[in-house]
Amino acid sequence: MGILELSDIYKPVQEDLDRVEERLKTIGEVESSWMSELLDYCLKGGGKRLRPMLVLLSGQFYKYNLERLLLIAMAVELTHLATLVHDDTIDNSSVRWGRPTINKLWGTEQAVLLGDYLFAKAGELTADTENLRVIRGLARTLMIISSGELAQAYSAFNLEQNRENYMQRISSKTASLFSFSAESGVVLSQAPEEAIDVLTEYGYNFGVAFQIVDDILDFIGTEEEMGKPVGSDLTQGTLTLPAMLLVEQHPEDNPIKRLFQNGLNEEDINQAIEMVRNSSIIEECFKVASDYCDKACHRLNLLPDNESRQALIDLADYIIRRRR
Amino acid sequence: MGILELSDIYKPVQEDLDRVEERLKTIGEVESSWMSELLDYCLKGGGKRLRPMLVLLSGQFYKYNLERLLLIAMAVELTHLATLVHDDTIDNSSVRWGRPTINKLWGTEQAVLLGDYLFAKAGELTADTENLRVIRGLARTLMIISSGELAQAYSAFNLEQNRENYMQRISSKTASLFSFSAESGVVLSQAPEEAIDVLTEYGYNFGVAFQIVDDILDFIGTEEEMGKPVGSDLTQGTLTLPAMLLVEQHPEDNPIKRLFQNGLNEEDINQAIEMVRNSSIIEECFKVASDYCDKACHRLNLLPDNESRQALIDLADYIIRRRR
Repeated sequence: MGILELSDIYKPVQEDLDRVEERLKTIGEVESSWMSELLDYCLKGGGKRLRPMLVLLSGQFYKYNLERLLLIAMAVELTHLATLVHDDTIDNSSVRWGRPTINKLWGTEQAVLLGDYLFAKAGELTADTENLRVIRGLARTLMIISSGELAQAYSAFNLEQNRENYMQRISSKTASLFSFSAESGVVLSQAPEEAIDVLTEYGYNFGVAFQIVDDILDFIGTEEEMGKPVGSDLTQGTLTLPAMLLVEQHPEDNPIKRLFQNGLNEEDINQAIEMVRNSSIIEECFKVASDYCDKACHRLNLLPDNESRQALIDLADYIIRRRR
Repeated sequence: MGILELSDIYKPVQEDLDRVEERLKTIGEVESSWMSELLDYCLKGGGKRLRPMLVLLSGQFYKYNLERLLLIAMAVELTHLATLVHDDTIDNSSVRWGRPTINKLWGTEQAVLLGDYLFAKAGELTADTENLRVIRGLARTLMIISSGELAQAYSAFNLEQNRENYMQRISSKTASLFSFSAESGVVLSQAPEEAIDVLTEYGYNFGVAFQIVDDILDFIGTEEEMGKPVGSDLTQGTLTLPAMLLVEQHPEDNPIKRLFQNGLNEEDINQAIEMVRNSSIIEECFKVASDYCDKACHRLNLLPDNESRQALIDLADYIIRRRR
């Protein structure tokens, strides 16, 4: 098999994904011109639309209900964007997707309120599905995400964390929304419970793998590929899996220990990045991510065999190989 | 009629309001102790629980559905608290209800994320009512609130605002949630459309009056009564009705003009407060608020005559006389 790009994988749902994009654009069509500008800027970032894609793919195994799937595909993307806007604000980040962040351009106030607006809009779209399970699911997912982010904020610059803490954090802050995306897609297509279970599990494990790779890329990516500075997790005091392994391997003299204990400085950050890059840590982390991808796919054979099932397998493969 | 206190007005729903309070407390019962502490602090502020009261009173005219009313009563209070937590954070306020704010004690990061968590919890509780009209209503209300707050942020320190802009802003940021509270209470009690209309209108006009009085109190209250500094709207660059009237009456030399154009200083703030206090502006603003209260009540006679109807009238009267 040659190396597939996202656009290849998208194929079974490309047309409907374009519809999601069209509909997302209309969200910026509000009365006040300055708010319209703010929304447009936010909606036209560099997102890969992975969550909407997961909704659409998951919706293709039973009764494909396009109208409802479009609603929830938009809702999960808006929820994702809202969390990014709030994250960038509280982290005081100035660059995302290779362009200035909302908080950088419009300030904290507008950024916090824009995030609130996007959450609300996601809620409205979800309500329009008229499916109570999905409606409740979105609310619960947002509770889980914000709890996870709170836990991350609480544990910032704390070295006393183990892998279990890490897994719990990334499950909450990332895997939960992927899991909900897959779940809601299949729930809205009148699927049997077993299929819902298989796809929810896929979304969850896929999300864990996705976040682990994200955390790896923060060490091995380039700013150009990532659209944001390398090493930003260390700057925020977030102990990710590669960082955790480095601390484990060098318990005595370690640049991350110095960073977390004595405050930030570029030299220690660069040294930490170099040490991780020149160790077996990256390989080890990819192995963990890859295992989660296998876990994601291992029950997909219980679903009807169609293009979407293959796309989900390819997507899991892609997520490991991606560089952004 | 003697002067009624809130506790007198509460009577028809006192018992159920206590139930709301009990249930709100359980929201702090989460696994992690530090998050529990954060939630408890937030939930045990000095809120008057006006919105839950409005839900319960509005629910007493037809089929009183206590279980669903409790859910939505909690949801509107949590939504209100979430907006306060975010407002205090973006305004960098350090005192509310006579005690340090969440952002002051825990920092911006925790405050933004706690607000998100509360919004999500409100969404979950609302989903549990299983009433799609109410579910959609909460999402729309939050869209309106955040748009209103965005408009306020956008227009900060701008003198080119008229009464229409002011009315629009307070309708969005305050009246919308009162309106939704009354509406959802009556919707959940299987009321006829006309009754829903009457109570939604009550909630809206009551909310407008409430906010105008709030804006008056920011000039004539004491820090002790208000639990926060006097003149805080001016400090935030928010042109409220009393301030607007002062600018209208003294178009040339005006401390508010100086404040908004040249930056904040205590002398101008104190002078603005003094000038408003010693003018007919306060009386004029109370007249506007009072007219909205009359408007709130003028169709209540279409509802069944019961204790709650009288309570709504008393509440409108109370809101004008309140000092905090």
